[in-house]
Amino acid sequence: MIKVLNIRTSKRCEFVDITHLVRQVVDESGVQTGVCFIHVPHTTAGVIINENADPDVVKDIDSVLRKLVPEYGNYKHLEGNSDAHIKSILVNPQTFILIEDGEIVLGTWQGIFFCEFDGPRNRKVYLKIVEG
Amino acid sequence: MIKVLNIRTSKRCEFVDITHLVRQVVDESGVQTGVCFIHVPHTTAGVIINENADPDVVKDIDSVLRKLVPEYGNYKHLEGNSDAHIKSILVNPQTFILIEDGEIVLGTWQGIFFCEFDGPRNRKVYLKIVEG
Amino acid sequence: MIKVLNIRTSKRCEFVDITHLVRQVVDESGVQTGVCFIHVPHTTAGVIINENADPDVVKDIDSVLRKLVPEYGNYKHLEGNSDAHIKSILVNPQTFILIEDGEIVLGTWQGIFFCEFDGPRNRKVYLKIVEG
Repeated sequence: MIKVLNIRTSKRCEFVDITHLVRQVVDESGVQTGVCFIHVPHTTAGVIINENADPDVVKDIDSVLRKLVPEYGNYKHLEGNSDAHIKSILVNPQTFILIEDGEIVLGTWQGIFFCEFDGPRNRKVYLKIVEG
Repeated sequence: MIKVLNIRTSKRCEFVDITHLVRQVVDESGVQTGVCFIHVPHTTAGVIINENADPDVVKDIDSVLRKLVPEYGNYKHLEGNSDAHIKSILVNPQTFILIEDGEIVLGTWQGIFFCEFDGPRNRKVYLKIVEG
Repeated sequence: MIKVLNIRTSKRCEFVDITHLVRQVVDESGVQTGVCFIHVPHTTAGVIINENADPDVVKDIDSVLRKLVPEYGNYKHLEGNSDAHIKSILVNPQTFILIEDGEIVLGTWQGIFFCEFDGPRNRKVYLKIVEG
């Protein structure tokens, strides 16, 4: 069964820490060992795993992505969010988390972030747990 | 069992919508719930999930990738396709699709694209479905 | 059960071929068909699948990543490794390998590389095999 997280973003570009939400879904599933798959069903957003101790890290990631893919450019797509589609591809709209002893397995400094590139919007994140 | 899609590309860089092919393999498998893993066994190609409604979106993705990773540069690899290897890493040669109620789970605007960066060539895409 | 690879890197940026180590873990597991998930529990490292025949390919990948994300820049994070965090996002800290007939499934030219972006360090790579 797929569990859906509902996320409200408040800026055009924003990194939202969803680690605790993913942990809660895994806890409630009761699964002891397996994999939690995370799929973002949007084309102008993504999901990453990186440092959540110092909030400046995701600010730097955001800043470099803006330089690599400028908001205004010679784009063909006329909705004004081509940069957001391209950033979604560079960071990817999917990831997975290993589960062991009923817990999600992350490194000391790792957190899971939903990446908004064309907000503010109401967004969804799909989680699916496979035992194994 | 791994299912193989055979794809013939016609340009050096090309984004081929393979959503219907993945859907067909999942349909034929009869699997109701699980994950479909997609692996591209090439080093100068990739696979992405992004908008397939407006064909200009993948044109913009292609265009920005060309700017970030120029075809001609100060490369060490002498086959003239270093840019294609690097683009393969930036977009990734792998993805997965959730399966629920016997259907692949994609957002409204999402499609699956094979990304050719060093064509034209005959290419393969591997699909593996895991129930769960 | 998660298997841990221990890797010692010797430079700030380094691509370490771990294909044989992943193959060995899959061999020892005795699993005939399934998926091997690879998770790097660090925020300044990653894992990629690309050519391991010509060592110049990963040199070119390294070189373009350095150009896209300079080591010294106008970064907020004060540890001097913001570039490494951003490169980790661009290449991703995760991948998976299909398993068929007891063997990992890779294309002719594909190898698996651990990507160090802030070494030298002692690093870990987590492997988890799911049958199916």
